[in-house]
Amino acid sequence: MENVTIRMLAERLQLSTATISKALSNSHEISEETKQRVLALARELNYVPNPYASSLRKKASHTIAVVIPEVADSFFAEAINGIESVAQEKGYHVLIYLTHENSGKERGILKDFQSGRVDGVLISVTTETASAPHGLDQLVKEIPIVFFDRVCEDVIAAKITTDDAAAAYKATSHLVAGGCRQIGLLAASPHLSISNRRAEGFLQALAAHGLPQNKAAVTYCSNDHATTKQLLKKIFREQQYDGIIATTEKLATAVYEVCEEMNLRIPQDLQVIGFSNLSTARFLNPSLTTISQPAFDMGKAAATLLFKALKNNSFALSEQQQVIPSALIVRKSTIAT
Amino acid sequence: MENVTIRMLAERLQLSTATISKALSNSHEISEETKQRVLALARELNYVPNPYASSLRKKASHTIAVVIPEVADSFFAEAINGIESVAQEKGYHVLIYLTHENSGKERGILKDFQSGRVDGVLISVTTETASAPHGLDQLVKEIPIVFFDRVCEDVIAAKITTDDAAAAYKATSHLVAGGCRQIGLLAASPHLSISNRRAEGFLQALAAHGLPQNKAAVTYCSNDHATTKQLLKKIFREQQYDGIIATTEKLATAVYEVCEEMNLRIPQDLQVIGFSNLSTARFLNPSLTTISQPAFDMGKAAATLLFKALKNNSFALSEQQQVIPSALIVRKSTIAT
Repeated sequence: MENVTIRMLAERLQLSTATISKALSNSHEISEETKQRVLALARELNYVPNPYASSLRKKASHTIAVVIPEVADSFFAEAINGIESVAQEKGYHVLIYLTHENSGKERGILKDFQSGRVDGVLISVTTETASAPHGLDQLVKEIPIVFFDRVCEDVIAAKITTDDAAAAYKATSHLVAGGCRQIGLLAASPHLSISNRRAEGFLQALAAHGLPQNKAAVTYCSNDHATTKQLLKKIFREQQYDGIIATTEKLATAVYEVCEEMNLRIPQDLQVIGFSNLSTARFLNPSLTTISQPAFDMGKAAATLLFKALKNNSFALSEQQQVIPSALIVRKSTIAT
Repeated sequence: MENVTIRMLAERLQLSTATISKALSNSHEISEETKQRVLALARELNYVPNPYASSLRKKASHTIAVVIPEVADSFFAEAINGIESVAQEKGYHVLIYLTHENSGKERGILKDFQSGRVDGVLISVTTETASAPHGLDQLVKEIPIVFFDRVCEDVIAAKITTDDAAAAYKATSHLVAGGCRQIGLLAASPHLSISNRRAEGFLQALAAHGLPQNKAAVTYCSNDHATTKQLLKKIFREQQYDGIIATTEKLATAVYEVCEEMNLRIPQDLQVIGFSNLSTARFLNPSLTTISQPAFDMGKAAATLLFKALKNNSFALSEQQQVIPSALIVRKSTIAT
């Protein structure tokens, strides 16, 4: 198909390109009759506006970006569905960018946004992203941004989170109720506020139940699966854990793998709780007790805030904070009911 | 941060905007000394080129699009990782668009590409997309496109697939070897060539093993989970299946759920094979025998073809076809070893 341009429309209708352009953007300067003639021909020839040219003029790409570490985690898959449920209604494209937990890659993506490629950004940062990172504090002043789940606490911006500390507290208390006395928490990264909030709730629960808070209680794992498994084998040999809280889905899977390889029985030798929205959690052997995060609702809430800001320039986006609670779903990998 | 423009650089250096622009694009018309002065100031002021303006000039967005039905399936999650492994090396952005199995949404996304928003497209079509669909046959002439996994057989274009018929044949033979005589195949859509290839291999295997190919053998399921579960309950009551091949990950999960609700034991009452790359397949109760697709390699191969076409205009992209074999991984949801 030959590209139909404004110039071609202008020649066919014996009008100036400026008139065509104004007619297509529904300018009040152009008569209704002329607009109808232009639109009819544009439809007939299947005219598609060039988004780069039209973005330059209108400064609106009708596109939002979702920047996340990965998609191979049911939390992000569900959060995306929540985001798209809102964007679809607003007629916006959603572009998904993956950082693969690499803060350098994240920096490159964010730099790209400075130049107006998208109208707004929803972001969940990498495990490497520091609390006051590379230009994110600057970018929030230039473009509407909402953080969800993995937020930067030191950046003043809109944030949608779940009750990470309370959820970890609940998980810990559940293990204690099932007889655990030596509990370990596995976390993704000491840089992530959600890891730290979960560790906080965990340590508070240990204290509340009169259990010692030794240094071995919290272990930060690698993004690399094989490295994580090596580390788990090491700590499972050294510590006599009877309960484990895996604060990501991948860590829960790694615990199941290591238990199988070390002949540790779940829950008899080790009780396990995973932060996970995995649809197969109930079919695992044994079925996995989970902290189930409101992923869809968090995505939806984040997108809703973003569109409010896109619609209304005076909306105080950076002051918006929402905490949506997680739920403990008890299954067979733990003993208490 | 105030936006730094070419005009600002020009004023500061007392040069014309044309000179600045040429220096930034490393034109041979500009002296090395001037280029160095321009680049030094651009770096100092953190100048970011406007991608829309620069795309208009260069007609290159340095961006590729991946259009897929969903991310909540480990096949697509792994395929994306394969695609990104290539794109990262080439310095390209990857934009992921989700169609949510909606061909109308797919059409909208594809229309957007006509206008040059991306340099190339990798696509796995929806369950609703017909074999010769809405403009895809036209779009392949306008922009480099590679289909992967879910291809349109009637469109002449580059395609990366797995050996769907052979994999289904292998799965069927495995069930027969385990004593199954009444086998059903669950497929996503009669519009999808991969569903049809799998059904073909399945029916061929039934014939080769002397089993009847009755009409009830192949069931096309809904994209809606609840509807699919209702349908499964109905056919499990009506047919005395002793073996089931679920050709998508979601269908395998639905079979486990329905078996639990109907008190059917896997594998004693019903043997199950799933097409799935789920990392938790081996921890399911019982562990799931799978056809494991080379998702990462398929994504990598598709992206590699696309970048060949982007680099070399005369590369005969639409003639490229690659078939990468899947593997049968035997676990406890089936009886034969």
